[in-house]
Amino acid sequence: MAINYPNGQKFVDPNTPTKSTSQPTNQAKRGMTLEEELNHANAYYLATDRAVIYKKPTPIQIVHVDYPARSAAKITEGYFREASTTDYNGVYNGKYIDFDAKETANKQSFPLKNVHAHQVEHLKRVQAQAGLAFMIIRFTSRQETFAIWADLLIQFWDQQQTQRKSIPYAEIAENGVKIPFGLNPSLPYLDAIDLLLAQR
Amino acid sequence: MAINYPNGQKFVDPNTPTKSTSQPTNQAKRGMTLEEELNHANAYYLATDRAVIYKKPTPIQIVHVDYPARSAAKITEGYFREASTTDYNGVYNGKYIDFDAKETANKQSFPLKNVHAHQVEHLKRVQAQAGLAFMIIRFTSRQETFAIWADLLIQFWDQQQTQRKSIPYAEIAENGVKIPFGLNPSLPYLDAIDLLLAQR
Repeated sequence: MAINYPNGQKFVDPNTPTKSTSQPTNQAKRGMTLEEELNHANAYYLATDRAVIYKKPTPIQIVHVDYPARSAAKITEGYFREASTTDYNGVYNGKYIDFDAKETANKQSFPLKNVHAHQVEHLKRVQAQAGLAFMIIRFTSRQETFAIWADLLIQFWDQQQTQRKSIPYAEIAENGVKIPFGLNPSLPYLDAIDLLLAQR
Repeated sequence: MAINYPNGQKFVDPNTPTKSTSQPTNQAKRGMTLEEELNHANAYYLATDRAVIYKKPTPIQIVHVDYPARSAAKITEGYFREASTTDYNGVYNGKYIDFDAKETANKQSFPLKNVHAHQVEHLKRVQAQAGLAFMIIRFTSRQETFAIWADLLIQFWDQQQTQRKSIPYAEIAENGVKIPFGLNPSLPYLDAIDLLLAQR
């Protein structure tokens, strides 16, 4: 199955185990996308009772469905729709956590155009309800992945009309926590959240 | 758009505002399904900053996508898939909340066959993470809707091999909180959750 979003982003079905999930060797985890690594981490955290976090299904606008006799209902016309929230949420040790994950090939900054206004609005609302709102940002050319509080995103987002339209790498590195490469899971992002919480 | 699930259940697109949402009169809210009323309540709670709760998109297995020139990507083959979690989750006043909503036409009990094993597993996991796990159950013939802690469901679920395969109405009425009919929202279910929390 090779399906891509209109923007060329690879479509990864969040509910289908990725090949790498079923392959035990670390070798197999090389070259996973950020989304695959997060799905892998969430499956690991679920299996080890550390947290209950899922990627939300991709919202699809369904226009037409066929009902073949003796077969499952078949969607014959549907369209991808923009999500109204972030991609990931769940519960971790009594805390509501909510985040989105983005990659950039840029080396010196994370362009704000990678984020949608409704995602920022959603993260603000989560904060207002005392949930833990954060972002996971990967600099692909550096092979570095950070967890940052949504505050840092919001700060740069809200001033982008008058200031720069990106978050400098240095700001992310200074205020965020770099997620180390792990064996299982390959992206132990909850350890980074623990560190962010300890710094608060 | 009249799309039904294979089981005949009405398909309600969670991200498309229902007619009643855009019609201000109470009259318009009559005859809403439980799902429509919950979507309406969640939109109301979001707009009034009381909680951030969404219904998850229906998971769709995408098999084929067309890319017509100058048009949006079109899904031409897809199938409904069973969700691995409950339908609703979010954050309310710092607390992670997670629930599913079910209707029964039965008068004297709620049949456990309305619930899937993976939903019960999910609710148990949410409890283990100190999230608030509950069910909203509507007895359509009585026009009564209750909020119950997941504990009650789990208790009957875990003994169904040797005991009855349903939860008696009397148990639900005694241990749950009846959600009154409201004006805005029509199903003020968070008030019932407040009462359940106060009774704990």
